[in-house]
Amino acid sequence: MDVGKVNSMDFREFVNVFGNVIERCPLIAAAVWSQRPFSDWEDLERHFSAFIDALPQSGQEGILRCHPDLAGGDLHQGTLTVESQREQSVAGLLSLGADEGLRLAELNSQYRARFGFPFVLAARLSDREVVFRELERRLHRPSTLELRTALGEVKKICRLRLADLFGVYPAARP
Amino acid sequence: MDVGKVNSMDFREFVNVFGNVIERCPLIAAAVWSQRPFSDWEDLERHFSAFIDALPQSGQEGILRCHPDLAGGDLHQGTLTVESQREQSVAGLLSLGADEGLRLAELNSQYRARFGFPFVLAARLSDREVVFRELERRLHRPSTLELRTALGEVKKICRLRLADLFGVYPAARP
Repeated sequence: MDVGKVNSMDFREFVNVFGNVIERCPLIAAAVWSQRPFSDWEDLERHFSAFIDALPQSGQEGILRCHPDLAGGDLHQGTLTVESQREQSVAGLLSLGADEGLRLAELNSQYRARFGFPFVLAARLSDREVVFRELERRLHRPSTLELRTALGEVKKICRLRLADLFGVYPAARP
Repeated sequence: MDVGKVNSMDFREFVNVFGNVIERCPLIAAAVWSQRPFSDWEDLERHFSAFIDALPQSGQEGILRCHPDLAGGDLHQGTLTVESQREQSVAGLLSLGADEGLRLAELNSQYRARFGFPFVLAARLSDREVVFRELERRLHRPSTLELRTALGEVKKICRLRLADLFGVYPAARP
């Protein structure tokens, strides 16, 4: 995919292609289409980030609530999105032992009860040790700080999914 | 459903129930959950409306772009949401003659090309005559006025879907 092709897409095609770069939030791709033409894939990424930043806090929390738990109900019921299934697989979350699975479910539940949204992490950049360590660490942070961190993970996921669609290998962001 | 039950829902359950009162925009229900508790179903409705009004224009256009064409591709491919299928059925749009179908497709296409979003109308309050008349009328209006009208239709659809879920019969809004 190149950016010229993207700039020529009507909104239906654009939403079909980019509708899940923010998990289960096609509204955001549908909004970003208003900003075309894009100069390159990172310009497109900047518009996704800018849209997230411009939302009221309830909307930012809403984005997080559209994400599945890691190794949670959607995985067990087979209702993960294709992208999320792949990312959780890379992080080794599809083959947890019974004890690990229970422990993760318990931590996810504590996290949701504390913050009102699920624990979100760019799983492709992690492995199961990192998942447990980060979850235990982030569980005890102040809410405002944690919201910012979680949205940062949403943006990392967005960057990786866009890079996949464009067939590029992105440099890590600081 | 009563409002006490709604106020006791966790965000997963809330999004499962209310995720499509704004067509294909579960993000909005997920955001509105932040505003609980709600005093009654119309209070919940007001929070959906307020969220829409607070979005930047690109986000408002994005909501519209998540809607299907009336009697369009989603209907023919069987990919309408349950709610939209029912609404289009009530308006008689599932049984258009071949000529009417072509004419509607042509008008929908002109409308999308002019405004950059699909023609949205609360189909349950209409019949096929009204659909054609409104589409022909709105096709020639200024963009800013048309955006406002289309969002008004989104809110009417939201009101009717909420009323269904609560089992109430809403008075029409002026």
